Amino acid sequence: MIRVGVNGYGTIGKRVADAVRAQPDMEVCGVAKRSPNYVAVGATEAGYPVYAADDDRAHEFAAAGIDLAGSVDKLVAESDVVVDATPSGVGAENRPLYEHHDTPALFQGGEDATVAEVSFNARVNYDEAEDADYVRVVSCNTTGLSRFLAPLYENYGIEKARVTLVRRGGDPDQTGRGPINDAVPDPISIPSHHGPDVQTIFPKLDIDTIGLKVPTTMMHLHTVNVTLENEPDDVTEIRDRLRSEDRILTIPDYAGIDGAGTLKDFALDAGRPRGDIWENCVWEESITLRGRDLYCMQAIHQESDVVPENVDAIRALSGHLTGPESRSLTNETLGIGFSRLDGRESRTLDRQTAD
Amino acid sequence: MIRVGVNGYGTIGKRVADAVRAQPDMEVCGVAKRSPNYVAVGATEAGYPVYAADDDRAHEFAAAGIDLAGSVDKLVAESDVVVDATPSGVGAENRPLYEHHDTPALFQGGEDATVAEVSFNARVNYDEAEDADYVRVVSCNTTGLSRFLAPLYENYGIEKARVTLVRRGGDPDQTGRGPINDAVPDPISIPSHHGPDVQTIFPKLDIDTIGLKVPTTMMHLHTVNVTLENEPDDVTEIRDRLRSEDRILTIPDYAGIDGAGTLKDFALDAGRPRGDIWENCVWEESITLRGRDLYCMQAIHQESDVVPENVDAIRALSGHLTGPESRSLTNETLGIGFSRLDGRESRTLDRQTAD
Repeated sequence: MIRVGVNGYGTIGKRVADAVRAQPDMEVCGVAKRSPNYVAVGATEAGYPVYAADDDRAHEFAAAGIDLAGSVDKLVAESDVVVDATPSGVGAENRPLYEHHDTPALFQGGEDATVAEVSFNARVNYDEAEDADYVRVVSCNTTGLSRFLAPLYENYGIEKARVTLVRRGGDPDQTGRGPINDAVPDPISIPSHHGPDVQTIFPKLDIDTIGLKVPTTMMHLHTVNVTLENEPDDVTEIRDRLRSEDRILTIPDYAGIDGAGTLKDFALDAGRPRGDIWENCVWEESITLRGRDLYCMQAIHQESDVVPENVDAIRALSGHLTGPESRSLTNETLGIGFSRLDGRESRTLDRQTAD
Repeated sequence: MIRVGVNGYGTIGKRVADAVRAQPDMEVCGVAKRSPNYVAVGATEAGYPVYAADDDRAHEFAAAGIDLAGSVDKLVAESDVVVDATPSGVGAENRPLYEHHDTPALFQGGEDATVAEVSFNARVNYDEAEDADYVRVVSCNTTGLSRFLAPLYENYGIEKARVTLVRRGGDPDQTGRGPINDAVPDPISIPSHHGPDVQTIFPKLDIDTIGLKVPTTMMHLHTVNVTLENEPDDVTEIRDRLRSEDRILTIPDYAGIDGAGTLKDFALDAGRPRGDIWENCVWEESITLRGRDLYCMQAIHQESDVVPENVDAIRALSGHLTGPESRSLTNETLGIGFSRLDGRESRTLDRQTAD
């Protein structure tokens, strides 16, 4: 059993903890939290030992009726692996703590790539993490792009990729974030940092990205153009390759899923924990081929798509399963893949293919 | 076993079906649906027999791989009670169908009160439905107001209630609804229809309501003023009365729940199906007393607060349990009540009481 400590129990941390607990070869030895709010109450209800991330605020936990198991230092000492899910930038500050205890650690994509030896995507470079002590799981957007590009890169070669990332302004619980009525170039410089970040996964890929923010909280939306080196037979071939990826959901037209709102409603209907959508969501009707130019739109659930990647990264660090074995086990234990929509034909795509 | 048919399997219908299935004395004999979208796929995955609400569209279900059990006429014939959860106005059109089969039916609050013999709230007038064949479960907003007002009405008397309903523009899956950047008086006439609707539950209550719509999809927010006939000792007494109501969640300050976004996140963390919040959510810090004038703010989850009321209304129609017995059974089977937040003191309210 791999004993996993989760430092930072927020949007990502609480999801990673639940995913780790669902694995047969891992256990959660505790979670560290800064403030005793409803999320901390949830940790105790879930049965996770709670550690104080900030000793100066430990007394606030007692006032809220939450028993502490100790401070984060003790959690790190007791863990085989720590998943650092603290806010962007705090992970780098925590690295000396992990080094002090000689505890391997994962960092999230909000950190600079230099925080770790390897930037990680389970589909593309699982093996590179096997000899590392510190691994960075790339961000939600970079994870989504890496999954989408991988089968294209392998089967056709990619001459150039161009992506616009229409990013949600904040998460549902981030009351103070904006914009509330604007579409904001963010970052205003081109390329955005996402392109170089994808290159930490595909070092030889030619990719430019543009980022902006809009007043939504549910998912990111990517508009993707990929100029392939070799032309596919037809768009159906592309669709079938994407369909065969286990962390991509292709959305058939008949389903009436027309945006992030219906996607979330669909996931909640399916009983997904927290309504999470771990898969890239690619609209089949949007998959379009113009010679070697491929276009499509995909939605990325910023709160959860990196969760299975964190689970796989823990195994990659520990080295006891291969990439395919780990991904398969993670998919099975979490319930990745919406079988309910699979295998039904999209009438729209058939029409489009006949163009 | 009460055999329940659900006509209209959308936002409310799918939730009522799941809630009915959780009852030991009820079973879902089928659901009727107009179009074969992802929600219909969800019905088949949940194991509900699916009936065509519109025979002209039955062939579309076959194309989407969904087997039909028949048309809605057959569903009504086989049901002991039908829950009509079709869009506003369609329920009234369906009533002759239920009369034809001599099948008792529930309607939703979007229908005019004249659609049924009784307008229903489980907390206030359960007994009135016992001799009825047709019952209307009042709307999400009227349900939320009735629950809030009931303990005040009983314990202090109400001289006058004044409520502003800041309504969500649409549900999360209603892509086409607005506003997207406005606060719209709706209805622009005062009082809004909500006040008279509350009077279908409290015929002698003096209440005026004002309605508007804002660009949110998560919950309604009510600002409430109630001028009581008799003055309470202090605000803590009011808080404790609200806390003791089983379908009201009082939110303590320490929890860090500052709006509908955090409320939904909290419900999802708690493992609520679809993140539903069946209870009124009253912020303890907002409960304020100025002489006989009581003020507070509460959030109402428009997709789900009427769900337990529908379950109780089915039992009221069938007459085999009393109101308290039914409410208790419904609460227990659905898991109503967030015990995780209860019993902890709100530091803020204690401060406010000392004013």
